[in-house]
Amino acid sequence: MAPPQTAFAAGSVEPPRDPGTLRIYSMRFCPFSHRSLLVLLAKEIPHEIVNINLQSKPEWYLKKFPSGKVPLLENDGILVPESNVVAEYLDEAYPGRKILPQDPYLKALDKVFLETFQYTSIFKVYYNKDQYNESFEGFWAKAGVVEAELQKRGTPFLGGKEAPGYVDLMIWPFFQLAIVLTIIYPDMKIPRAKFPLISAWLNSMQGTREVKNLVNQDHLVEYVRQKIDGKPNYDIGL
Amino acid sequence: MAPPQTAFAAGSVEPPRDPGTLRIYSMRFCPFSHRSLLVLLAKEIPHEIVNINLQSKPEWYLKKFPSGKVPLLENDGILVPESNVVAEYLDEAYPGRKILPQDPYLKALDKVFLETFQYTSIFKVYYNKDQYNESFEGFWAKAGVVEAELQKRGTPFLGGKEAPGYVDLMIWPFFQLAIVLTIIYPDMKIPRAKFPLISAWLNSMQGTREVKNLVNQDHLVEYVRQKIDGKPNYDIGL
Repeated sequence: MAPPQTAFAAGSVEPPRDPGTLRIYSMRFCPFSHRSLLVLLAKEIPHEIVNINLQSKPEWYLKKFPSGKVPLLENDGILVPESNVVAEYLDEAYPGRKILPQDPYLKALDKVFLETFQYTSIFKVYYNKDQYNESFEGFWAKAGVVEAELQKRGTPFLGGKEAPGYVDLMIWPFFQLAIVLTIIYPDMKIPRAKFPLISAWLNSMQGTREVKNLVNQDHLVEYVRQKIDGKPNYDIGL
Repeated sequence: MAPPQTAFAAGSVEPPRDPGTLRIYSMRFCPFSHRSLLVLLAKEIPHEIVNINLQSKPEWYLKKFPSGKVPLLENDGILVPESNVVAEYLDEAYPGRKILPQDPYLKALDKVFLETFQYTSIFKVYYNKDQYNESFEGFWAKAGVVEAELQKRGTPFLGGKEAPGYVDLMIWPFFQLAIVLTIIYPDMKIPRAKFPLISAWLNSMQGTREVKNLVNQDHLVEYVRQKIDGKPNYDIGL
């Protein structure tokens, strides 16, 4: 039986996992968890999700993984943290469409690009809500490297013509947060004229099965609103 | 003809590279360059070295690689920066002993461990020479995770019984800097009693061909001394 989707908090009991069932510890609105979920969806890997209350972490989770961070992948004898490492592990250990380039040089370029793009600047909005416009603009100032990379690669996705690849899936959650901020703060606008290729990429990404199945955008908007106010509810919409 | 080993500075001319010759842009005493050189040595990959003057960077180098950082790997149509990415690229694209585990889970564990160990704390000594003892002790405070990992893996090298692997080669340059600091500041001592496994690991690493061929320790001591005084000489010993 699949674990409940409501977040597990301190005082809860670890839900039993059937042997051979791949489990992902996640938070429904966490962009790093989204990275791993996107890879699981893209590769159509069967999995179950256990959501963690990040403000009141279960004792059993801290025992399993002392840093208490999400995402964390678990299977028989296997624990893999760090969203970029999870992505690579899933791509190597499971069948399904390949997310990372198989050519060593193209793979290296993807990894270098991911280190170049300072996507986390978008998080500043959580910690200084009175300067949301600066955080938003700071994110887009960094996004110029994505526009340039789309231009250089000449394909709708950074991973090619047909479908998102490693870099697309690793950076999408931060762009999704940027989109959500334009809903919460209507005076903020995605600079589509300045970034025509990113603009087309956003549309392409939103049309993919993995993004459509990732998270309900209305719920994400509601969560981000609450997070900015310092009172995140991990169970919105359940 | 191999390029001269003295550092190339502003005003210099880019040394021509023969097609098919793998070149590494390096700085003779840079720990990140050392990571890449260790992998080249471990895998016995033929290469030529072009050293860069980091305080007066050649215009041709900045044109090739605007960040101007080292290391950078070059071959026909190939430019790979970032020492950890270079290591993985070399391991996948070239024959020779494998540095990274071939099992996806063990590979993931290596990458996660490398992110866990905050090796760069040792650099603080360069920027606050009056508190060298705090920087030194700060590094060893972080080194506890290496001791624990050696205990957990139960092998002389983190990469196994026989030879250094990915994690060994990526973290060695920072331990080498710590050793050098004990020579420059004789009141600093490697806490061998507290870290018996690291202590044995240091001896094992110093016995390997790759470490023996990496850098002349006397020259490194002299460089670090000068770097602490703010006047690094990239051509010591040439």
